[in-house]
Amino acid sequence: MKKILVLGAGRSATSLIQYLITNAKKEDWQVAIGEQVPEQAQKKFPTAEVFYFDIEEKDSATQKIGESDLVISMLPASLHGMVANICAALGKHLLTASYLPEEIRQLSDQFARQNATVIMEMGLDPGIDHMSAMKVLDRIKSQGHELTSFETFTGGLLKDNSEMDNPWQYKFTWNPRNIVLAGTGNVKFIQEGRYKYIPYHKLFSRTEIIHIPGHGYFEGYANRDSLKYLDLYGLRGIKTLYRGTLRRPGFCKAWDIFVQIGATDDTYQMEEVERMTHRQFINSFLSYNPHDSVELKLAHYMNIGLESEEMYKLKWLGIFDDELIGIEEGTPAQILEHILKKKWSLDNSDRDMIVMWHKFDYLENGRPKQIQSHMVAIGDDEVNTAMSKTVGLPLAVTTKLILQGKINATGVHLPTEKVIYEPVLAELENMGFEFSERETIS
Amino acid sequence: MKKILVLGAGRSATSLIQYLITNAKKEDWQVAIGEQVPEQAQKKFPTAEVFYFDIEEKDSATQKIGESDLVISMLPASLHGMVANICAALGKHLLTASYLPEEIRQLSDQFARQNATVIMEMGLDPGIDHMSAMKVLDRIKSQGHELTSFETFTGGLLKDNSEMDNPWQYKFTWNPRNIVLAGTGNVKFIQEGRYKYIPYHKLFSRTEIIHIPGHGYFEGYANRDSLKYLDLYGLRGIKTLYRGTLRRPGFCKAWDIFVQIGATDDTYQMEEVERMTHRQFINSFLSYNPHDSVELKLAHYMNIGLESEEMYKLKWLGIFDDELIGIEEGTPAQILEHILKKKWSLDNSDRDMIVMWHKFDYLENGRPKQIQSHMVAIGDDEVNTAMSKTVGLPLAVTTKLILQGKINATGVHLPTEKVIYEPVLAELENMGFEFSERETIS
Repeated sequence: MKKILVLGAGRSATSLIQYLITNAKKEDWQVAIGEQVPEQAQKKFPTAEVFYFDIEEKDSATQKIGESDLVISMLPASLHGMVANICAALGKHLLTASYLPEEIRQLSDQFARQNATVIMEMGLDPGIDHMSAMKVLDRIKSQGHELTSFETFTGGLLKDNSEMDNPWQYKFTWNPRNIVLAGTGNVKFIQEGRYKYIPYHKLFSRTEIIHIPGHGYFEGYANRDSLKYLDLYGLRGIKTLYRGTLRRPGFCKAWDIFVQIGATDDTYQMEEVERMTHRQFINSFLSYNPHDSVELKLAHYMNIGLESEEMYKLKWLGIFDDELIGIEEGTPAQILEHILKKKWSLDNSDRDMIVMWHKFDYLENGRPKQIQSHMVAIGDDEVNTAMSKTVGLPLAVTTKLILQGKINATGVHLPTEKVIYEPVLAELENMGFEFSERETIS
Repeated sequence: MKKILVLGAGRSATSLIQYLITNAKKEDWQVAIGEQVPEQAQKKFPTAEVFYFDIEEKDSATQKIGESDLVISMLPASLHGMVANICAALGKHLLTASYLPEEIRQLSDQFARQNATVIMEMGLDPGIDHMSAMKVLDRIKSQGHELTSFETFTGGLLKDNSEMDNPWQYKFTWNPRNIVLAGTGNVKFIQEGRYKYIPYHKLFSRTEIIHIPGHGYFEGYANRDSLKYLDLYGLRGIKTLYRGTLRRPGFCKAWDIFVQIGATDDTYQMEEVERMTHRQFINSFLSYNPHDSVELKLAHYMNIGLESEEMYKLKWLGIFDDELIGIEEGTPAQILEHILKKKWSLDNSDRDMIVMWHKFDYLENGRPKQIQSHMVAIGDDEVNTAMSKTVGLPLAVTTKLILQGKINATGVHLPTEKVIYEPVLAELENMGFEFSERETIS
């Protein structure tokens, strides 16, 4: 009997833990959950072994990890280093859905010496994006074609619903803080052989339109540093390389207003937050003018109409209301997150949706050809979200494949490798997470 | 005979050292200069004692400081802490023109126990701004009037010259890097009792027009966190508090283009800088479009005309030229600084100009009144600049006053105190650095 230890049982771990429990008997697994608040997790997963776990309490953390065969860390990314150090010392397999930091990369030899496997970036994005892209990239390369362009977009959205009154067609389906801060940092990509850079305050106005047959139109904006993927995907010399994030059409123009006024800034504390209303929050970013309304000042500042679609979206959020924000202190980004949560939290009529889309251009004997592939996943309800499934199930099936001995690369790995992505994608396809592919002459 | 040690003999120290040398005999001073490159300083100041000095070499630094009575540090601000620790241990007076950091504030008792004086922020800005503002603020307060508003602007500019072909009417008269990065960080102020915040990317479009009788019109933009001055100047409860930077009209709209495209970003390294031209630098921030010129793309992106004043300013700088930048690597801000230096370096026909302007509103028995005061200083040539004089001479006369026993506050101080600003301002007035004041019913 193999023992699997899941660290952290938050929203994003739901589908993962359910899969592990459902398959425990058949696969001869014992599933344990380490949580800082074990009561809640025990209620959600009554048949699992749930105990108090704090990675900062090193002795008991080491003991618990020592009793298991494989650890899946769903803790905040900053804590993975501590988990990895214990796993490396004890020779335990480790899986996460987070980006591989240098400190964990350096443990690769130590893991390998003990025949232990670490696979990082095994969620949705990073995770399914790596695997589904590399599958096509490796195929194009193996056929001897010359790749000229690779663009890839992913979005965590709401399922289209004509009865929905939410003009943003958007709610938080993932860590709200990360969504408020999305796009901060350096945006770099390559287009037709030229390096391109976009500052944060221009990001949401430099969008692209993406059409996915059968799913309609989306808006995409550039996602961080695409140049990192030159080496990660073996793409040196490619003419165009662009990673982006998908939203519903119209989202970015309205979101950009928050960016433009400075409401997503996370670098300073605002004054007298405990007495601040939504309306005062917005007004604090606008010029003083006692004769004009906050609405008029904002519309004028942003050069949009008072009756524009963007103003309608903002009004729907209640940002002009004389309602107390309800927190004691915060940065603009923290305050905005708090205001947005009042309207953008999932309720039981909401279904979330994950969309991932890749476009590959290549030359086949000098002739330009194109492959587009995409995956759409829909949530079951507000707990079993598409986000929870697409983040958790890659980890779940990778766990199965490692414990079955079907993945046995030792040391630290990413799912960009064929020996990893091939069996994992095959399992995911069986569960309905399938990429539709179409090839055209571009 | 008293020994004065000046650390650092760069451009900003010229007027300071000249004053000290000129007055050495009369005041019975010995002037020593510690420099990392002593040859250059010795050539510039042949009668002074010049030696190699590196604050990182603690033993010899301690010995040299030990041999002097008073130290003036013109080193980069980050090194002042080390200088202060040695001065505190040895009980030596210390003056700088830099902002007071917490680590130096904490040495106050140690300095006081040895009857040694530290005065920080004794340059232009900070320095003359504190003294000239506090002189009026203290007077208004002592007369029992209620202060309602305080606005203050300073600018390092070029003297107006009708023959000048430079459409910016601007060159670097101070640390070019600080000028390229000016305005990054948080901008906070109070207007009519409301806290206001401006993000960096909106700073240069939210300018104010300032008119100074006899000197014409200027443009002002908000300078960092004005709220810090609530306590520093004793202004809690004031309705309006705004600190700003002055430029010639039209400067900010053109400079804003660099901010908008992201050319002042200092947070990431650009790719392949060694092969980059001015034109490619600008193009890397613009969308790919092989059919349009870089000029057209920029004008379109910024929503300005191809023949606009802003485009003329940019063309004058040569930023659309196919000229190699000439550095191997750099952030956007470092590259922009390098390009700008080619046109914005002072030559011997240039005279720089410092403008400082304060506006105080107060109630005299319920009646609104206003005082405006301003100072304008003009450079002698490209070495004896107004910047060098207004930064260096406050330090120089404070040195004299301390060594004459006319300032004898011990411990760490700022020139916001009357016992310091009164004698220093009187000396500066004698040297021609005078504030013109006019009082009106507002």
